[in-house]
Amino acid sequence: MMEYEVKIRVENLAPVRKRLAALGIRPGSRVAERDLYLNSPARDFGKTDEALRIRTTDEETTLTYKGPRLGLGGVKAREEIIVPVGSGKGLEEILVRLGFTRTAMVEKSRETYRVEGAFVALDEVEGLGPFVEIEAPSGLGEDGAIALIGRVREALGLAGEETLLSYLELVLSTR
Amino acid sequence: MMEYEVKIRVENLAPVRKRLAALGIRPGSRVAERDLYLNSPARDFGKTDEALRIRTTDEETTLTYKGPRLGLGGVKAREEIIVPVGSGKGLEEILVRLGFTRTAMVEKSRETYRVEGAFVALDEVEGLGPFVEIEAPSGLGEDGAIALIGRVREALGLAGEETLLSYLELVLSTR
Repeated sequence: MMEYEVKIRVENLAPVRKRLAALGIRPGSRVAERDLYLNSPARDFGKTDEALRIRTTDEETTLTYKGPRLGLGGVKAREEIIVPVGSGKGLEEILVRLGFTRTAMVEKSRETYRVEGAFVALDEVEGLGPFVEIEAPSGLGEDGAIALIGRVREALGLAGEETLLSYLELVLSTR
Repeated sequence: MMEYEVKIRVENLAPVRKRLAALGIRPGSRVAERDLYLNSPARDFGKTDEALRIRTTDEETTLTYKGPRLGLGGVKAREEIIVPVGSGKGLEEILVRLGFTRTAMVEKSRETYRVEGAFVALDEVEGLGPFVEIEAPSGLGEDGAIALIGRVREALGLAGEETLLSYLELVLSTR
């Protein structure tokens, strides 16, 4: 299915939390996410604009594939397929046997909120700092997703510039 | 970890079931297994003697990688990594996006028994017929695994010839 989201770099997460509290929105879970990105032996995902990720939290492990990005006026859209897996270590071993290589690990602390049905993530990314992501729920279609993301962004007063870059690209660009 | 097993083609599973019953061994579960084998975009598993399989039963779905075979006097030894997954369909989609291709589906009905700690499978494979597999539990080491498989094979009176071929290869050879 298609993922629609906007990512905004912020100076500080505290004003965003304050705004959310003022809107009467309760914080959801806070989780530590460890994301291992892998590259394919058959093609370079840096060139094809794809991504393969093993995400591990205290709660669960998932494998995610992301297709090439489409930029829709600052909103990033891409195909996303997510599958829960029983063992991140085992899956990593299989992928390495298949010739996949480890590109980088991205670690962050993420607080998640629901705002008008959208998923709002307050992220503190290791080596990068704080970001806010707003993601539309699935099933809205392109226009509905973009409109919702715009409304939520305004409600939260997030005037900073959005980036179409992924955390992986941002982490790699600091090296 | 290493998998050690022997696979024997039989005329009929009934005499094997009788022998197991005479030894006082109770049948375990009987499951329908649907195994989808995939090939890599980076190398031909038919040539490198590897295998990648999504196994679906009513109970669970797993992803399995198998490394090249070593034939040890009729016993087949190969590295095996198994990971439970939440969605076989989702995983298949991801692998197809990554360039993997579907080689074949192998379907069988499998009854599993425990004999002296070994796993004995009575398989009825679609398009191939009945087989018995004897697999050593992990941790025995090569010599221990081979000795146990020999003892269990003798106890079950399985005099037929073993094959080092996989069900996938046997299915492909009938096409």
